[in-house]
Amino acid sequence: MKNISIIGSTGSIGTQTLDIINNDRDGFRVTSLAAGSNVKLMEEQVRRFSPLFVSMQSEEAASDLKVRIADTGTEVRCGAEGLDSVAADPKSDMLVTGIVGMQGIKPTMTAIREKKTIALANKETMVAAGSVITALARECGVKILPVDSEHSAIFQSLEGQSRKNVDKIILTASGGIFRGRSREELMNVTASEALKNPNWVMGKKVTIDSATLVNKGLEVMEASWLFGVSHRDIEVVVHPQSILHSAVLYTDGAIIGQMGLPDMHIPISYALYYPERMPVMGEKPDLAVLGSLTFEKPDTEVFRGLPLAMQAADAGGTMPAVFNAANEEAVSMFLNGKVGLLNIYDIIGYAMEKHRVVDDPDIDDIFEAEREARENAASWSAA
Amino acid sequence: MKNISIIGSTGSIGTQTLDIINNDRDGFRVTSLAAGSNVKLMEEQVRRFSPLFVSMQSEEAASDLKVRIADTGTEVRCGAEGLDSVAADPKSDMLVTGIVGMQGIKPTMTAIREKKTIALANKETMVAAGSVITALARECGVKILPVDSEHSAIFQSLEGQSRKNVDKIILTASGGIFRGRSREELMNVTASEALKNPNWVMGKKVTIDSATLVNKGLEVMEASWLFGVSHRDIEVVVHPQSILHSAVLYTDGAIIGQMGLPDMHIPISYALYYPERMPVMGEKPDLAVLGSLTFEKPDTEVFRGLPLAMQAADAGGTMPAVFNAANEEAVSMFLNGKVGLLNIYDIIGYAMEKHRVVDDPDIDDIFEAEREARENAASWSAA
Repeated sequence: MKNISIIGSTGSIGTQTLDIINNDRDGFRVTSLAAGSNVKLMEEQVRRFSPLFVSMQSEEAASDLKVRIADTGTEVRCGAEGLDSVAADPKSDMLVTGIVGMQGIKPTMTAIREKKTIALANKETMVAAGSVITALARECGVKILPVDSEHSAIFQSLEGQSRKNVDKIILTASGGIFRGRSREELMNVTASEALKNPNWVMGKKVTIDSATLVNKGLEVMEASWLFGVSHRDIEVVVHPQSILHSAVLYTDGAIIGQMGLPDMHIPISYALYYPERMPVMGEKPDLAVLGSLTFEKPDTEVFRGLPLAMQAADAGGTMPAVFNAANEEAVSMFLNGKVGLLNIYDIIGYAMEKHRVVDDPDIDDIFEAEREARENAASWSAA
Repeated sequence: MKNISIIGSTGSIGTQTLDIINNDRDGFRVTSLAAGSNVKLMEEQVRRFSPLFVSMQSEEAASDLKVRIADTGTEVRCGAEGLDSVAADPKSDMLVTGIVGMQGIKPTMTAIREKKTIALANKETMVAAGSVITALARECGVKILPVDSEHSAIFQSLEGQSRKNVDKIILTASGGIFRGRSREELMNVTASEALKNPNWVMGKKVTIDSATLVNKGLEVMEASWLFGVSHRDIEVVVHPQSILHSAVLYTDGAIIGQMGLPDMHIPISYALYYPERMPVMGEKPDLAVLGSLTFEKPDTEVFRGLPLAMQAADAGGTMPAVFNAANEEAVSMFLNGKVGLLNIYDIIGYAMEKHRVVDDPDIDDIFEAEREARENAASWSAA
């Protein structure tokens, strides 16, 4: 029996994690949950999984939930403190970090200090604070298991292999919904056009990041920290079918890769059961039915997310946090109709240009860089 | 420094093995070699690698070689006894079995008894005598490393994974040179048409087996013994590009597979250096350049090699040896222009029909079944 805490339990990763747990009630116990504002779904989760305590982002949401679940034994907490107490939950063995954005950094650090295994789905944690997080995990002897499908695939492709034989990592990308489009064609796309993603059901932020390839840039930086490989030894290959989830090229010319249907339950389940694998009852991939897997180089002229990310990773220090924070601001400006899709790159570039890198940053330097990047991003104008 | 013996040193696997060894003279020493009748190439190999002794199949070839290399310190032996002495070579750590056909069985058993690691490229050994060989290897604590590209890929896809999580093995097939042809179109093909193989440079026998898909049938049986998986849990998928060399489907829906350029040096090198990997200087695979990988179900109506193999494996005991021996006879009849390509299936079917299976056979039962199968195959007539 594994005891599990989840931060971001009402989001995409959180709900899929609870799907898996729901199918194996003898294997897992949910000890605590944290979410943003979705009180209704949290009520359902409390009634189904009976965690010891839960936390909501705002006091209002927490008060509302308290009334709704007054008949249960589950305690309600709130705010950053509540979130942190879920991460520190003394009853849990593993923290699933399913929240989006840099708010995941502090609870992840808390959970590492408390020696919990981390099932990491919050890529911003590694992008912005990779040096701090990996050093802390090493110090505390804590395992970080990736939940992202790409990073799970890389992790699986490295199992049983010697790291010194790794030549490079091959990170696959669906190419996003605008693959093949020119810059001109992307000038006037709207948020609703950008929010249709072909292969994966994802949150809005991630869908835009996927369309701009900023997502792949973040994943390159995440993979670099997770697997101890230079970002320059990670090659992005566009693979629209999203079947080869990623791979590793070894020095002898062999590529080991992990394939599967595009279903986040698989990498989540892999992290939850690691090192075992849980049989799925659903459909299994059949290569003869899939028919064809195609691969192409990413168009980095149009989709500047990738070269900008490489530039941020080259600069190092606090720059990846700036890249990430400026992108978060820019995406929310795009979703609110304030800027165009391609302006996202301009905004990231502007914030990076304004930033003076702090080398070997501590966590306060990172948050300060983040704050400054958001400010600069917000002040960007097309003029 | 690893000491290596090779049987079949002048064949396709043997020469490629020596290529690799030639590039790493500090890593390997060749202690003994055995070959058939290619005296000229054996002379070159003796001069380059200075083995302690070598063996040729016939006395004539041995005498000829003796004269040619009289100035060297290498001893020349011959016949089955000479071959067996190479397998038993007290100086060697690993035997590479690069000879084709059932003549590989006895030397492989000898080498296992002498506790040498086996780099197995002789699939008939496992097909005909899998039960005997695997039992002996277990008893002697000997590792059998596959050299076939498909089996090497499966081996690599199982590394670091728990066997109980294996759902099935996905064995890829190029489909052979006649992929997509109808039975009518194959009625009158000649040996020379059949001997053009698109992706791999191989011997004649293997090229025909690849065209008839008998090769895949043999490989299914070989994989079944090598990896302890029922032949019914091995699925053949046609993949004309020969980039995905094979894969494993796990119970959680994840496929782990090994990709690479179609170059036998890679799986041979993997076996020679296992568990390490030797950097290749040559071209490495680039998925974006390869562009597209396609997969389809094999046409088992036209290419009956596969269903006949499944039938032989279902029957078990001595039947796989009959399948293999009848095929060897039939292929040689085809190469000599005596029968048509599709008659190969008829001849195998005929020999299988005539055979009474011996369950739990010992090695003598297997050789008796082989002898009988050859006799029956030779007596087959289209009438």
